[in-house]
Amino acid sequence: MRYSKIPNETIRRLPIYLRGLAMLAQQGERSVSSGKLADFVSVPPFQIRKDFSYFGDFGTRGVGYDIANLSRQIKKILNLEPGHKAALVGVGNLGSAVLAYSGFRIYGFEVEAAFDNDPAKIGKKIGRVSVEDISKINTLARRGIMMAIIAVPEQTAQQVADSLVAAGVKGILNFSPKRITVPKKVKVITIDFATDLARLPYYIPSS
Amino acid sequence: MRYSKIPNETIRRLPIYLRGLAMLAQQGERSVSSGKLADFVSVPPFQIRKDFSYFGDFGTRGVGYDIANLSRQIKKILNLEPGHKAALVGVGNLGSAVLAYSGFRIYGFEVEAAFDNDPAKIGKKIGRVSVEDISKINTLARRGIMMAIIAVPEQTAQQVADSLVAAGVKGILNFSPKRITVPKKVKVITIDFATDLARLPYYIPSS
Repeated sequence: MRYSKIPNETIRRLPIYLRGLAMLAQQGERSVSSGKLADFVSVPPFQIRKDFSYFGDFGTRGVGYDIANLSRQIKKILNLEPGHKAALVGVGNLGSAVLAYSGFRIYGFEVEAAFDNDPAKIGKKIGRVSVEDISKINTLARRGIMMAIIAVPEQTAQQVADSLVAAGVKGILNFSPKRITVPKKVKVITIDFATDLARLPYYIPSS
Repeated sequence: MRYSKIPNETIRRLPIYLRGLAMLAQQGERSVSSGKLADFVSVPPFQIRKDFSYFGDFGTRGVGYDIANLSRQIKKILNLEPGHKAALVGVGNLGSAVLAYSGFRIYGFEVEAAFDNDPAKIGKKIGRVSVEDISKINTLARRGIMMAIIAVPEQTAQQVADSLVAAGVKGILNFSPKRITVPKKVKVITIDFATDLARLPYYIPSS
């Protein structure tokens, strides 16, 4: 792989930069300094410059980074081709919020399929997706869907992960606070609201 | 501040370590090596050792880290006193999922109040919290609530943030993909599902 030396922490920040660049472009900006981008993404300027240096420096002194060029490079590194498809498993409160989420668009993602085991939900149309029976997960590979979002209760998260892996899914975004285990070739990213909330008191002066 | 030299990236990982340590303790473990903890938290062992070195090394060669002691130290650094209270604004799908979320407990958090502007939701009891009219946000300071979670549609996120700041809130967990601006003394942490999903394709080999 061409970019294999980029640290995971830098990879974690690249989508955040991409979102900041998209916001700046919407405001009509064409170039940006690391200092201005820093304000947008809450990452210090030196860190931004260091992160960008891993894949070549696109900045021009006194002018800054060209927004269109930099965005293109980041998308290329992240392998963010347009039309990436994801499936959602679990259409409860959280799953419904995911289906309604507007933030995926700037990355070219679509949630293309949704699954649940509740007969009252199966067949229901939410946005542009119809909820399917969870037993249909095995159709994902032939539909070209290799990413999935797990938003089921924690007791069933592992079982769902196993089905997804069996269905050929290569990447999982897991909202369950429970740890799930998968074969090494499958990448799991866990979102735990609590770990983010738990950082806040550090920054709040004691009263 | 005693620990002011700890990088933000280390602070970001501390709650993740704490969750891993809690899981290990539940399994009856009393000590853990950086290698075993690494498996639990998906952070490389060298990074774990480096992070812990910022606040003194609690590990013993060949034995590892004492789980109870290390957990106590991390909680102290993060200022995670038991009984931290948070308020939720926006009781839609996402807000309801937050109220039902079990993951806050290991950090000693309680969501103590919930607000919405929808008359159909106001007065409704969800879990142990009754939904209050959004105009009651100004009662937060006197109830000792200094942290809030924003789960409203993105068009109203800034307005809600302004009200929270006026109500004396010092830390905000923001689920809106829109950027909100607050005075420097207030800390905002943004959770954007999309930035996490956008990292997945990097780790998925192209087919």
